[in-house]
Amino acid sequence: MRTKSETRRQAILKAASEIFRETGFERTSMETICKHVGYSKATLYSYFPSKEELFLEVVMEATEAEFQANHAALDPTTQDIKQALNNFGIRLLTLLYSPQVQAVRRLVVSEAGRSDLGKKCFELGPVRSQAAVAEFLHQAMEKGQLRRANPHVASLHLKGLLEAEWLDRFIFQMLGALTAKEITESVDRAISVFMAAYGVLDDASKQARTKGAGRG
Amino acid sequence: MRTKSETRRQAILKAASEIFRETGFERTSMETICKHVGYSKATLYSYFPSKEELFLEVVMEATEAEFQANHAALDPTTQDIKQALNNFGIRLLTLLYSPQVQAVRRLVVSEAGRSDLGKKCFELGPVRSQAAVAEFLHQAMEKGQLRRANPHVASLHLKGLLEAEWLDRFIFQMLGALTAKEITESVDRAISVFMAAYGVLDDASKQARTKGAGRG
Repeated sequence: MRTKSETRRQAILKAASEIFRETGFERTSMETICKHVGYSKATLYSYFPSKEELFLEVVMEATEAEFQANHAALDPTTQDIKQALNNFGIRLLTLLYSPQVQAVRRLVVSEAGRSDLGKKCFELGPVRSQAAVAEFLHQAMEKGQLRRANPHVASLHLKGLLEAEWLDRFIFQMLGALTAKEITESVDRAISVFMAAYGVLDDASKQARTKGAGRG
Repeated sequence: MRTKSETRRQAILKAASEIFRETGFERTSMETICKHVGYSKATLYSYFPSKEELFLEVVMEATEAEFQANHAALDPTTQDIKQALNNFGIRLLTLLYSPQVQAVRRLVVSEAGRSDLGKKCFELGPVRSQAAVAEFLHQAMEKGQLRRANPHVASLHLKGLLEAEWLDRFIFQMLGALTAKEITESVDRAISVFMAAYGVLDDASKQARTKGAGRG
């Protein structure tokens, strides 16, 4: 029974994924998905109570593997905290600013108020992510790789910096897909600011900084 | 002629502002606004071609004075750059996270793709603001109050940090109005990070930092 149920669920998700991609969210109806997959409306709605929930599940299925990989980039045994944060930042922006995830975030902003979609997505996305990042930063603070601070706030500052160059353009729909170069360079600038604020100065940079400031 | 036109425009804006506030954007129709202000639909549409544009104009009228005041907080003759940025940050968040402006941003995110609303708002809001902030930071860099860097990127980092603790909760509609305390404290944390990255170390903080690091 559960197997049949799971098979159906997967068939619906596969059909919906194709149709959303071809037709876009707005112009896709639940009826079209029904016809495509060959189930009744009642069956479709018993799996997914609304088009919004179906859409989000499609995206969750498509991005969950990447989401996990992103956070695996935060290896707690790393010696090079800056490099680990850089890797994480590149993966995060690549995921968040893909046209597919941009579309979901847009949907959530406009739909969230009408249902508990916002809360669900908030918990599955940002809350899970922030908790993992904060834990990584906390361990780095414990090991003296970062200065001691509130790891939760630090994780929010990290995300704010990573998105800083792109977010308003996203909000106002002035942004297409980002190039790898745009991502890499903006992540590099963001992590430099983060490390200046949260990093521990090593001897070399202390000397350089003191010398640099002394010249001024 | 122009005076009559401006009188009518103001009457429409006043009526629309009241109705949007009472009824909300979605449940307000152009017809309701017509009835309230006593003009024909043709007249209303000759001033505002859509409900969206009317709504945004209402908000622009309501926030323009605050927008100007925010940027006046960036006094280029200031001696205390950190304090000036703090004042600006508090004003910015107070404006951006007021329920009214949250509603407009939400509208823009969902509607922008369908018209040139996104582009218009982007230019009136963020672009104008970033240009003013970048110019202020540039002058501070010239005077040696901040280290030399790309002022445009610095202005985006500043905004990203200021919004960092609130943005995802806004996007996912998990955020009500912020309290003055929440704003003040989060701005203080954001400006500390910004100054650590873009500030010029004075002698006292250089010593403190070196001493602090030496202890570790």
